[in-house]
Amino acid sequence: MISAEQATQLIAATIRPLPIELLSLPLAAGRVLREDLRADRDFPPFNRVAMDGIVVQYAALEAGQTEFLVERTQFAGQPPEPLQNPQAAIEIMTGASLPEGADTSIRYEDLTFRTDETTGQRYAQVQVPPPRAGHNIHPRAADRRQGDLLLPAGTVLGPTELAVAATIGAATVAVTRRPRVAVVSTGDELVPITATPLPHQIRRSNGLMLQAAADTAGAVTALFHFNDDVAALQQGLPALLHDFDAVVLSGGVSKGKADFLPEVLRRLGVEQRFHEVQQRPGKPFWFGQHPSGAVVFALPGNPVSSFVNFYRYVHPWLQAVQHPAAVSPGPVPAVLATDVSFRPVLTHFLLVRLEDAPDGRRLAHPERAGGSGDQASLLTSNAFLELPAEQEHFPAGTVLPAWRFR
Amino acid sequence: MISAEQATQLIAATIRPLPIELLSLPLAAGRVLREDLRADRDFPPFNRVAMDGIVVQYAALEAGQTEFLVERTQFAGQPPEPLQNPQAAIEIMTGASLPEGADTSIRYEDLTFRTDETTGQRYAQVQVPPPRAGHNIHPRAADRRQGDLLLPAGTVLGPTELAVAATIGAATVAVTRRPRVAVVSTGDELVPITATPLPHQIRRSNGLMLQAAADTAGAVTALFHFNDDVAALQQGLPALLHDFDAVVLSGGVSKGKADFLPEVLRRLGVEQRFHEVQQRPGKPFWFGQHPSGAVVFALPGNPVSSFVNFYRYVHPWLQAVQHPAAVSPGPVPAVLATDVSFRPVLTHFLLVRLEDAPDGRRLAHPERAGGSGDQASLLTSNAFLELPAEQEHFPAGTVLPAWRFR
Repeated sequence: MISAEQATQLIAATIRPLPIELLSLPLAAGRVLREDLRADRDFPPFNRVAMDGIVVQYAALEAGQTEFLVERTQFAGQPPEPLQNPQAAIEIMTGASLPEGADTSIRYEDLTFRTDETTGQRYAQVQVPPPRAGHNIHPRAADRRQGDLLLPAGTVLGPTELAVAATIGAATVAVTRRPRVAVVSTGDELVPITATPLPHQIRRSNGLMLQAAADTAGAVTALFHFNDDVAALQQGLPALLHDFDAVVLSGGVSKGKADFLPEVLRRLGVEQRFHEVQQRPGKPFWFGQHPSGAVVFALPGNPVSSFVNFYRYVHPWLQAVQHPAAVSPGPVPAVLATDVSFRPVLTHFLLVRLEDAPDGRRLAHPERAGGSGDQASLLTSNAFLELPAEQEHFPAGTVLPAWRFR
Repeated sequence: MISAEQATQLIAATIRPLPIELLSLPLAAGRVLREDLRADRDFPPFNRVAMDGIVVQYAALEAGQTEFLVERTQFAGQPPEPLQNPQAAIEIMTGASLPEGADTSIRYEDLTFRTDETTGQRYAQVQVPPPRAGHNIHPRAADRRQGDLLLPAGTVLGPTELAVAATIGAATVAVTRRPRVAVVSTGDELVPITATPLPHQIRRSNGLMLQAAADTAGAVTALFHFNDDVAALQQGLPALLHDFDAVVLSGGVSKGKADFLPEVLRRLGVEQRFHEVQQRPGKPFWFGQHPSGAVVFALPGNPVSSFVNFYRYVHPWLQAVQHPAAVSPGPVPAVLATDVSFRPVLTHFLLVRLEDAPDGRRLAHPERAGGSGDQASLLTSNAFLELPAEQEHFPAGTVLPAWRFR
C-alpha cells in the first residue's frame, strides 16, 4: 500500500495544462490568464491632476504671488490646452490632464475665490500654499511604464486584474478552458433526492456534494449515477472517459462483492496508477488514467471519505491543470488547540474547526466525529488537519498543515 | 465629517433581509437557507454495516465458535432478511442494513473461506475475532436522531450542507434571493475597453472591477456607464433605483464642478445618510437610501478608493442582506510585519500582502503604493489593514483587522 505522499506524486504526474481559449474580458472573471499582458502606455498615461481645484506654475508662488486670474475651467476627459499666462491659473477637476505651462495643483479646500465686479473676471486666492512644485500631480508613468509586464501568464483574473486588463484595452484574453468533470455516484442502496427511501435505502447525496465542490474549483460539472451493475457501468463509462477531463466516482472501490469499479475501469482501458492509500479516511481510494488523457478518481463511498479525499487530491489537481505556472495553494499552517492521539500507522485526516485567534494565529479545534459514515460531522468543521503516519501523539501547540474546505 | 465606525453603523441601519425564494436543491449552491431543516429519520436510518465481510451473533463467538456457515450474501440496498440460524453468518457489504439476529461484523481482512466439497456449502473461518459485540456496526441514530435540527435557517449551502439536505430529501429549499446590484461608472474621461483612448482619456475599468467583486459576494449584477451629464443621470438613474437592491456608483462625488451625483441623487428622492468619511482612501464616499428601499453607495472614482471602500462597506452589506441570522464575517486579525506610521487623523486603509507564516500566524506586509490612483498597486496586495484614526505609529507585531479581498 502506498503513502499519501506517494499518492500525491502519482496524481501530480498526470497534470497537464488544459487548452487555452479566447474570451471577452467580462466573461473571463475567475479564469487563469495564459498570456502576458503589458502596459499599452504609461500609468498614468498623462500628468494627472489628483484634486479638484486650480493648477498654476509653481515659480509664480515662489515669487510670492497669492492671487491668480482663472483663465478657464478644464474637466476630466477634456483635452488640455496650455496655460496662456504663467501668472494665471486654470480651474481643473480630478482626473484631468495637466495643461502645458502648469506644474502644481492647489485643492479647493486651500483656496477662496472672488469675482471682479467690473471685469467679471474670477480670481483664486491661495490660503494654504502647496509645499512644493508638482504637489497633487500624479505624474505620467509614476506607477508603471509602457511595456511593463502587468499581468503575467498564470495570473488569476479577479476584480483588480480585470480592471488592469480593461485599462490596457485587453478586450479579449487567452485563458485556460475550464476543466470538465463528470461526477458519478454508484450504489444500489441510493435513491433520488425526491424519492422516499425504504428503510434499508438512503438518498443520493455524495454526487451533489462533489459536484458543488468541483464547481468551487472552477470546473464545469455534470452529475451521473450508476447502480452496482457491471453491464451498466461498462456501457455508460466510456462516453464519460472521452468527454471529460476527469471522472470522479464515489463508491464501489472497496473489498465488497459489489465493488466492481477497479475491474470495470481496467477492462475499459483505464490504467491503474494506485489502489489503496495508507490513510484514514479513504484507504480504498483508486486512481488511474485513460489513454484519452482523462483521469479517474474513484473515491470511497462513505461521505466523509469522499469529501476529505476530494479536497486532499481532486481539488488541487483541478487547480493545477488550470494554473500551469503556479504552485498549488495547498494547505495552510494551523496550530493544534488540544492534544490529539492517533495510533494506526496511517496518515490521518482530522476534521477541525479553524478559528482566527485574536493574536493573529490560526487555531485548529478538533471536532468530535462518528467516523467516515458521519455525514453530519462535516457541518461543524471547516477544514481537516493532515497528521503524519509516523507520529502518534500531537500535543496542543503543534503546527500542522490544514486543508480548508469552507 | 463622520468616522468610519459611524459610516458602518449608518449603512448597517439599512440592512433588511432580502425576500425568500424556493429553489430546487441543486440550484441552491452557495445560497443562504431561510428555513430550518431537520432530520426526516435517524442518521444512520438503520444499523449500518461499516465493512465488507460477514455478520454474526456475538454470543456464538463468545461461546468459542470460529467457523460459520454462510447462509447467503446481502448487498447494500437489499432489504435485510433475518439470520436463520444463530450459529451461522451472512456475507454482507458495506452500507447494507444489519439483518435481524446478527449484531457484529467481521471484515474480509480478518477471515478465510472454505467450501465443503460434499455439500457445496461455504464456511467463513474467523482469524482475528472482533473485540466486542457491535464491532464495525454503525448503529441507527448514532450520529443524529429523527427531528434533530441539522441545518438551521441562516446556513450557507456549501457542498456538505447540500449533501445533508439531499439525505433528508429537501428537494426544494427556501433560500434568500440574490441581491440585485447595478454597478455604475461615471466620468467623461472614460472610454470603452475596446476603444483607443486619446492622450487625456482612459478606458473604463472600475465598473468591471466592482461588478466582479459584487459577483463574488453572490450578487446578480448589471453594468452601466454615464457621462458627467446631469440630464442623462436624471433620466437613467430612476429605473435603477426601482429595479435594484443596491446601486454602486463610482466617481462624481468629490468637490469638483462635474461632481453632480449628490445633487442629482437628492433630486431623485434618494435620502442622503452621509457624505464624506474621515478615512483614506475614500473621503468623498456618499451613501443614501431611496424610498423604494434601494441603497446607493456612491464611491470615489479613484480605483484604489473604489475598490477598498467596496470591500470595507458594500461587500459586508451584500452578505448581511442575504444572511439575516449571522454576524458578517468581517475582517480577520493580522500581525503587522514592519513598522508603519500614518499622521493624518483619518482611518487609514493600508494595502498589504497577507502571508501564512510557518508558525500559524497571519502576517501583514505593507505594500508600496502610489496613492489612490495607483490601480496596479492592487495587483500585489490581497488585503488591507484598518489603521485607527487616533493612532500615528504602529510598530511591527501590532495586531490589526485585515480585510481580505483575494
